[in-house]
Amino acid sequence: MPGYSGFVRSLLARAGARIGDRIRIERNDGRSFEGILMPRYAIHERPIIVIKLDNGYNIGVRVDENTRVEVIKPRETILREAAAGAPAAIPLLEEEPPPGPKPRVYILGTGGTIASKVEYETGAVKPAFSAAEILQAVPEVGFVADIDAGVLMNTLSENMKPEYWEKIVDAVADKIRKGYDGVIVAHGTDTMAYTGAALAFALRNLPVPVVLVGAQRSSDRPSSDAAFNLIAATLVAAKSEAAEVLVVMHGETGDTYALAHRATKVRKMHTSRRDAFQSINARPVAKIYPFERRIELLQEPLRRRGSKEDLVVENGFERKVALIKYYPGMDSEIIDFLVDRGYRGIVLEGTGLGHVGEWLVDPIRRGVELGTYFVMTSQTLFGRVNMNVYTTGRRLLQAGVIPGGDMLPETAFVKLSWILARTQERSEVISLLQRNIAGEYTHRITIDLYPRWPH
Amino acid sequence: MPGYSGFVRSLLARAGARIGDRIRIERNDGRSFEGILMPRYAIHERPIIVIKLDNGYNIGVRVDENTRVEVIKPRETILREAAAGAPAAIPLLEEEPPPGPKPRVYILGTGGTIASKVEYETGAVKPAFSAAEILQAVPEVGFVADIDAGVLMNTLSENMKPEYWEKIVDAVADKIRKGYDGVIVAHGTDTMAYTGAALAFALRNLPVPVVLVGAQRSSDRPSSDAAFNLIAATLVAAKSEAAEVLVVMHGETGDTYALAHRATKVRKMHTSRRDAFQSINARPVAKIYPFERRIELLQEPLRRRGSKEDLVVENGFERKVALIKYYPGMDSEIIDFLVDRGYRGIVLEGTGLGHVGEWLVDPIRRGVELGTYFVMTSQTLFGRVNMNVYTTGRRLLQAGVIPGGDMLPETAFVKLSWILARTQERSEVISLLQRNIAGEYTHRITIDLYPRWPH
Repeated sequence: MPGYSGFVRSLLARAGARIGDRIRIERNDGRSFEGILMPRYAIHERPIIVIKLDNGYNIGVRVDENTRVEVIKPRETILREAAAGAPAAIPLLEEEPPPGPKPRVYILGTGGTIASKVEYETGAVKPAFSAAEILQAVPEVGFVADIDAGVLMNTLSENMKPEYWEKIVDAVADKIRKGYDGVIVAHGTDTMAYTGAALAFALRNLPVPVVLVGAQRSSDRPSSDAAFNLIAATLVAAKSEAAEVLVVMHGETGDTYALAHRATKVRKMHTSRRDAFQSINARPVAKIYPFERRIELLQEPLRRRGSKEDLVVENGFERKVALIKYYPGMDSEIIDFLVDRGYRGIVLEGTGLGHVGEWLVDPIRRGVELGTYFVMTSQTLFGRVNMNVYTTGRRLLQAGVIPGGDMLPETAFVKLSWILARTQERSEVISLLQRNIAGEYTHRITIDLYPRWPH
Repeated sequence: MPGYSGFVRSLLARAGARIGDRIRIERNDGRSFEGILMPRYAIHERPIIVIKLDNGYNIGVRVDENTRVEVIKPRETILREAAAGAPAAIPLLEEEPPPGPKPRVYILGTGGTIASKVEYETGAVKPAFSAAEILQAVPEVGFVADIDAGVLMNTLSENMKPEYWEKIVDAVADKIRKGYDGVIVAHGTDTMAYTGAALAFALRNLPVPVVLVGAQRSSDRPSSDAAFNLIAATLVAAKSEAAEVLVVMHGETGDTYALAHRATKVRKMHTSRRDAFQSINARPVAKIYPFERRIELLQEPLRRRGSKEDLVVENGFERKVALIKYYPGMDSEIIDFLVDRGYRGIVLEGTGLGHVGEWLVDPIRRGVELGTYFVMTSQTLFGRVNMNVYTTGRRLLQAGVIPGGDMLPETAFVKLSWILARTQERSEVISLLQRNIAGEYTHRITIDLYPRWPH
């Protein structure tokens, strides 16, 4: 009964419970908990029984001498049923990490739902990011990698901003230089794609995978994706050949596979679904089957693993950059205001092939003359801007607007912020914007990259 | 040889060409044209041969005595091959409209790719919106309805604005009151969904279908969708039971079906594909098979056809409303500026469940206190905002932000503009915002409404 001692051990022994049995814990306060009895890693001495919930997340339940423990289903029955094909949200994995050296992965906590655990004793959600706490919550990550972990910040992702991107870039670079074989950034999902793009531009010649991971549902909910996503992210960080910045999240609503998306091509496309993250105008880089510990590459990665000396950090993001979505009748005073406030870059989310109302052409031209860079993207998200087809597009080109190809508006915003912190020279800005630096452009958008809609 | 006379008739007779044959026309200027020989409706006396291009669009080719005409494939062969299943972009329909009274449909031209035809004589693209010209270009529309048509404006859709919405509302209402059984609004695709939403809010108790239609590719291109979409739109306007505002466009890349989308739930999702328009968080209202002249309802329409006296026009849109997309680090000076400029409404396109950076909460509260309405939507597009889950959402609610449910950001922008032109009373504004007025809310978003992504 590894990890259990004192009266907790007696409680379990009285119930005849063994590691791997499904048990129910009924406390005096009326709350009850059900899950698979897990071994305890002796981190602290609190009177806690660790069970694996059906969502795969391990929690510690505080008990006392009066708590009742009951075996619901013995381990042998569970294994027999699983062998016969019974659904199991997260199958039982080995109880002990396999021996021998494993890849070294660093998990960097920045905040959000994934970087928290529910204290069942208090009901409070707390950041949980010591390596020990992660291993307690999701021991499976310890089977594929040697984990170190630390909390860099505890920021809800809606509160992220360029200065935090810069801190994360430095922290990730530091871990790579310290020899880790992969770095995981645990991040809130709301702006994870923006931060991912920032890392993708700032970390040049990446020698190892850098994986952003999050959770759409917190770990106390039966439908939580925290454990599944973290296991998938660890697999990618430890074992994938793709040395680029990836967002790893659930691939569908079940628990069969996760996807690794190129950070510059991914978007959160749903407020709440577990498979909210989807690649736009691009195929995901890889499919991950966490229970089979298998990674299937869907396309050639931007880079493969290389020497850690190759890493070049080009950190720094211009703050005076805005992302402006066009809408019918939009008043030109908004453009004038930004230009007059000294904005150095404005990414326009135009309509269709890259248009805005004709009354904005002159204000934009004035901005260009005063040194503001304008980049055009499309609010359709899919497809690419083409400003040579219609008059409005040609007039915008003549005014100095730079077409953004098939770049996502969000990625174009991050890229322009990054470029304008590097150079002020117009020809260089344009050249960097048009160069495919971190996979932000898809050269050829094939017909199968458009989703299939429900009709 | 209906419609042909003089030397043109001789040219065709010499070639042995009959109506329905596939012919090639070779002109002295080196240009050649290929298509099905069509009858000519005697509109003017110019020396023109009308052929149906493979995209279904009929064009007039100017000829002279030295033009060569050749039969490529006789009508009988085409019909035999079509009967054996050979692909035909647009099958041959009857050559004469069926006798008897037909529903009356009015086609209102507002501009855009669909409302133009290419003058092959000059190569120029011109608005083509007399009924005669439409019937010449796409005679099939005359088989399902008695068509009247007129040009209201010739505005590229990126140049649309609320004052044009108001003109279109009045023009459509006028045609309905004049007894038409359906009204088609030919519109550029870029902002068609915004205009559609505007019509949906302003035209209350609609007694007939109001159909917006456009083309992604102009009619001189082999891949043009102009003819297909116009035939489908005419079918819906003439025959559909759904008395609501619909956007009718291609449903897939082939030529099998078009879709009728609820105007408040549709979005242009691709810069260039023919099936760019897709319903978000909703099923399309109907599938249209133009060649079978069949309409398949996919859900109960908002209203069914009713008495033309029922129509209530609530026209008018507040101009001082903005749609603001949030991005990491967004400076609060943008909110302050809009509030100080007297904006009466701001629709926020927040992250995830409806969040923005915490530093925007106080500026938003100030705006609310000064009388600006803030509505929250999500840049994920799919799903619905829920501002009770996380602290940031709750703080925004306390500051006075009104959650927009699953409304599209674009629809919320139009709706807020419409409401603020009706009332200034806060309780009324909130009540109207939260009421489902034109199908802008989906009560229950089922799992199958999320598209299937390519992986």
